[in-house]
Amino acid sequence: MKISQFTRRQYLQAVPASVAAFASMPVLGAKEKASRSSTTQAGGLCLNEDNSHYFSSRAGQKLTTETVAAWVDQYANTQVRELMLCVNCMRTSYNSNVWDPIWKGYDPAGSDDQPLLASTPAASRKGARDWIHTAWQLNKNGLDVYQIWITRARKQGISPWISMRMNDVHNVDDTRSYIHSEFWRAHPEYWRVPYRLGPSADRAFDYGRHEVREHHFNLIRELAERYDFDGLELDWMRFGYHFKPGHERAGIEILTDFTTQVRRLLDSWERKRGHKIKLSARVPSRPQTALGLGYDVVTWAQHKLIDMLVVTPFWATIETDIPIETWKNLLRGTSVQLVAGLEVLIRTHPESKQFQKNTLETVRGAAASLLDRGADRIYLFNYMDSQTAMDDLQNYPTLLREAGKPETLSNKPRRHILTFADTWAPGEPRAIPLPIQCAAGSWYSFRLATGPIPTSGKVQALLGLENISASDVASSELRVNGEICKLTGVVELQKPKPEAPVYSFEIPRTLLQRGYNVIEIHPQQPCKIVWVEIAMNMNAISTR
Amino acid sequence: MKISQFTRRQYLQAVPASVAAFASMPVLGAKEKASRSSTTQAGGLCLNEDNSHYFSSRAGQKLTTETVAAWVDQYANTQVRELMLCVNCMRTSYNSNVWDPIWKGYDPAGSDDQPLLASTPAASRKGARDWIHTAWQLNKNGLDVYQIWITRARKQGISPWISMRMNDVHNVDDTRSYIHSEFWRAHPEYWRVPYRLGPSADRAFDYGRHEVREHHFNLIRELAERYDFDGLELDWMRFGYHFKPGHERAGIEILTDFTTQVRRLLDSWERKRGHKIKLSARVPSRPQTALGLGYDVVTWAQHKLIDMLVVTPFWATIETDIPIETWKNLLRGTSVQLVAGLEVLIRTHPESKQFQKNTLETVRGAAASLLDRGADRIYLFNYMDSQTAMDDLQNYPTLLREAGKPETLSNKPRRHILTFADTWAPGEPRAIPLPIQCAAGSWYSFRLATGPIPTSGKVQALLGLENISASDVASSELRVNGEICKLTGVVELQKPKPEAPVYSFEIPRTLLQRGYNVIEIHPQQPCKIVWVEIAMNMNAISTR
Repeated sequence: MKISQFTRRQYLQAVPASVAAFASMPVLGAKEKASRSSTTQAGGLCLNEDNSHYFSSRAGQKLTTETVAAWVDQYANTQVRELMLCVNCMRTSYNSNVWDPIWKGYDPAGSDDQPLLASTPAASRKGARDWIHTAWQLNKNGLDVYQIWITRARKQGISPWISMRMNDVHNVDDTRSYIHSEFWRAHPEYWRVPYRLGPSADRAFDYGRHEVREHHFNLIRELAERYDFDGLELDWMRFGYHFKPGHERAGIEILTDFTTQVRRLLDSWERKRGHKIKLSARVPSRPQTALGLGYDVVTWAQHKLIDMLVVTPFWATIETDIPIETWKNLLRGTSVQLVAGLEVLIRTHPESKQFQKNTLETVRGAAASLLDRGADRIYLFNYMDSQTAMDDLQNYPTLLREAGKPETLSNKPRRHILTFADTWAPGEPRAIPLPIQCAAGSWYSFRLATGPIPTSGKVQALLGLENISASDVASSELRVNGEICKLTGVVELQKPKPEAPVYSFEIPRTLLQRGYNVIEIHPQQPCKIVWVEIAMNMNAISTR
Repeated sequence: MKISQFTRRQYLQAVPASVAAFASMPVLGAKEKASRSSTTQAGGLCLNEDNSHYFSSRAGQKLTTETVAAWVDQYANTQVRELMLCVNCMRTSYNSNVWDPIWKGYDPAGSDDQPLLASTPAASRKGARDWIHTAWQLNKNGLDVYQIWITRARKQGISPWISMRMNDVHNVDDTRSYIHSEFWRAHPEYWRVPYRLGPSADRAFDYGRHEVREHHFNLIRELAERYDFDGLELDWMRFGYHFKPGHERAGIEILTDFTTQVRRLLDSWERKRGHKIKLSARVPSRPQTALGLGYDVVTWAQHKLIDMLVVTPFWATIETDIPIETWKNLLRGTSVQLVAGLEVLIRTHPESKQFQKNTLETVRGAAASLLDRGADRIYLFNYMDSQTAMDDLQNYPTLLREAGKPETLSNKPRRHILTFADTWAPGEPRAIPLPIQCAAGSWYSFRLATGPIPTSGKVQALLGLENISASDVASSELRVNGEICKLTGVVELQKPKPEAPVYSFEIPRTLLQRGYNVIEIHPQQPCKIVWVEIAMNMNAISTR
C-alpha cells in the first residue's frame, strides 16, 4: 500500500473558508428539557466543536461570558444530544498547568513574524494568530470557554462532553510550527516512525512509550479535575495511529490498559461529582482495521470501560458505507451506544484533486442509511458554524434538526454517494472502489446502502464518466439490482459533483432495496468511472 | 469492480494431476478412540472429500466394501476430527431418488462421445467418464460409498459428516455438460444472473425462488433419512452466490429461514437416531462480505441453528489472513466452533497466471497463524489423497498429523505468504494487496500474521520483485516492524514461488511480533512487487 501524505496546511488550502452567521435559537423550557434526556431517546446527533474554530472565527469580537455561552444556543432545540468540546491538539486552548497552552511563547504585542509564528506560511498566519490571540485574551479576561459552554449546555438540555485529541499531528512537516508542544519537539525518539515523514501520523507519538502515555494521562487528570463534564471522549482518530508499524498487537493491551485507567479516574470523579461520567472513544470505521491499529473495542465494551463508541473515517472523506451491522453485532449484549461518525469532506477517491464538502442532501443520505443500519447516533465532525463547515451553511439549522432521526429524514431529497474508507492499519490491503478504468464489454459493479425506500419521488443513478462519448454511454447497459435502467441524459449537478460529465439513469422506485442497491454497468467502450451516486427526490437536478 | 470468470475446465487445466498412493494407517484401538472425542479436544482438522475425486481416482479398481472403507483409514490416527463427505454438485454421486444421479443418461457400453459426454472437451472426457462410470458401477454393485465411509469413520473415532454443496455451478459455460441437473437446464429463469455469464456463479440458482429452495431442501430431506451422520454441512461456498445482485439483504431472511428449517429437520432425526446431529455452514471469510451475500451468521449462531462455522475463501487461493479475531468476537457467548478454511491453491494475486498449490510448509504457516488467532479447527478443502491435492503429496500424512494443532506446528519450517481474499459481495470494494507497481522513493507496506514466534532458526522476508536490478534492490530500504533488515541476496525458492526473482532479507528473530508483522519497503527505483513472504526455519532455501 502506498503511503501518502497530507498536512493541515493542504487541508486548509483545500477547504476555503465560508462564513455564515446564525440567529441564536430560543432557550429550552424546563419541561422540554426533562423530556429529552439523551439516554432515553433513540437517534440524535453528537456535535464536535474543535479546539481552534471558535477562537479563530470569533477573533476581534468582544467576548463576554454571555456571548461565549450563546454559542451553545444554536444547538438548543435541535437533535444535538451531546456537544463534544475539544480542548486540545498538542497544545491546549485553555490555560493548562500540565500541557503547553496554545499561546505559550506568544507575544500579543509582537509582529506576525514573531518567533512563534515565524515558520508558519504567511497565508496561514492570520488564522493561527486569531486562534492564539483570542484564546490568550479570553484567558487573560478570566473566561474559560469550556466551563461556560458546559454550564450553558446543561441549561439547554444538551449533554456537555470534553473531547481530547489523543495524538494530534497537525503541521508536523514543520517541526517549528506554533502548534507543537515542547514535549513533542524535544523527543523525536517518541515519534512512532522516526525514519521518514510519509503521512503526518508518522510523527505521532508512540504510545508504546510510557512517557507518552503519562504525558497524555496528565492532561486527562487535569480535565477531570477542572471540568464537570457528562462524558469524556478519547479522540483516538486524531490521527488514528499510535504505535510503531508492526507493534499494534502489543498496542492492544496498552490501549486497553490506558482506557481502564481513564475509566478508574472517572469512577473516582463520579463519586465527587455525584453523577455518572461517561467515556467514549472515536476509532476507525471498520472492526478489523480498528483491531489492526490496536483498538480492542469489543473488550472495552465487554468490560464496561466505554459507554459510547464512535466509528468514523479520519478526514479525507465522509464514509457512507460504515459496516454498522457488524459493529452492532460486536457490541451485542453491552449497553454501548454506537455512533456513526461523519466528516465534512466528500470525495469519491483518494487521488481526487477535489476537496468538496457535504451539503444537507449528502448528509441526509449518509445519515438515513447509517441510522437504518442500526447506528444509535450520528456524529458531526468538522460541521461547525463557520469556516470548517458544510458547503451550504444556510442549511445548517435544518441539518441539526433532521440528520439524527429517520423520521425527520424520511422522503426528503437526499444523495447517496460512493466514497471510500480513509484509514487502514499499516500494511492492511485497502479496498478503494473508485476510480475504475473500464474495458469495453466488461461488467463493473458498485453498491450503495440507501436506507429506507422513499414512498414518493424520483430516484436516479448518477455516474460520473470520463473519456467516453454520450452516444457510447447510451449504448452501455446499466442495471440496478438486476434490472435495466434507462439513460435519461447528462445532468447538471449541484455541488458536490465530479469534474466529469454526469449521466443520469432512472431507477423505478419499485426496484430499490432497503440496504444495498447494486449498480452494474456494461460499457461498450473503454471509460473511467469517477463518481457513483443514487439520488432520491432531487428534483433540482436539471437534465441538460 | 471488474467481474471475471473461471470455470471448472480452466481449473482442471491449471491444476495438473499428481498422484500418490498411501499405505493404510493402523486402525484405532478402543481406548485411543475414547480419548479423542471431537467435542472435547481443542484444535484438529476437518477434511473435505469432494463429490468426484474418489470415483474418478479409483476408476478401474476393484472396489469392495472393504476397499471403499479403507479410504477412511488414512485419516485414522491423524488430527482429522471430522470427515466432511460431499455427495453432490448439481447431481448426486449416489443413487438419489429426488435429484439426478451423476450417471443419469449414461450408457456404460456407449462411446466416449455418447450424448451425455458429447459437449465435454476431449481432454476432460476421461476424467468425467471415470467419475460417472465408477459411481454407476458402485451403485450397480449395491455399494453406497457414503454409507460405508460413515460406518468406518465411526470405527476409527472420526466424526462422519455429510457435506452438501448448496449451489454448485461447475461447467455452466457449457449448458449441455454432463454435470448439470435437468432442473437447472429446464429453468434458466431460476438463474441468479440470467443476462450474462461473467463468473460461473452468475448461473447459480437464485435462492429467492421458492422452487429453488424446495429443490435443495428435498435433497437434504433425503440425506437425513438415508445417512446416519454426526453432522450436516451446508456448503454455501460452492459457489457462494445465491441471490440476484442487489437482493442479498432480502436473502438474509431467506437463508436464515432455510437454515432454521434444516435445523428442525435434524432435530426430528436426532430423536430417531438417538444422538445429536450437528449443523455447519461454510461461508465467506470476512463478516461484512458474508453479510453482504446474505449470510447472517451471527443470528444463526445466536439462535443455536449451527454448531460449526467454516470461514473460507472460495477457491482461487488459500487465504492466509482471515480475520479470525473478529469472527471470534462475533461468536462470543455461543458454543459455535470456528473453523478456518484452507483451499489448495496458493496465489498471490487474482491476475496471476500461476496456479501453484500449497505444500506442507505453506499450510503450516497458514495453520499456525489461524490457530494462534483463535480458530478452533483447520479445514482442508481440496486436500485429497491424489489429483486435487497438495503439491508435495509425500508430505500428506505429515500434514494430517501436524496442521491442526499449535504444538505440532511449533518451530517447524513454515512459510507465511501474502495472498488475497477471493470472494466479495456484489459491488463490494475489493482489497487486493498485490501486485503493486512501486514508484521510486515511495514507501510501500504489507503485513503478514505469522503466529507464535519461533524459539530457534532463521527468519527471512522474501520479496518477489520485477523490473528492478539486484543493485537497485540493494539500495532499497526494507524494514520489518520499524527496523532495517539486511538484504542477503537472491534465493532459489522451492515451489510455490513467483516467476520473478526473489530477494531475501534477514529478520532477527527478536524483531518478530506475534500476530501481524509489517514489512515496509522503500525502493529507490520503480519496480513491481508480486510476492511477499516471511519464511521461518526454511534452511532449504539456497542463496544464489
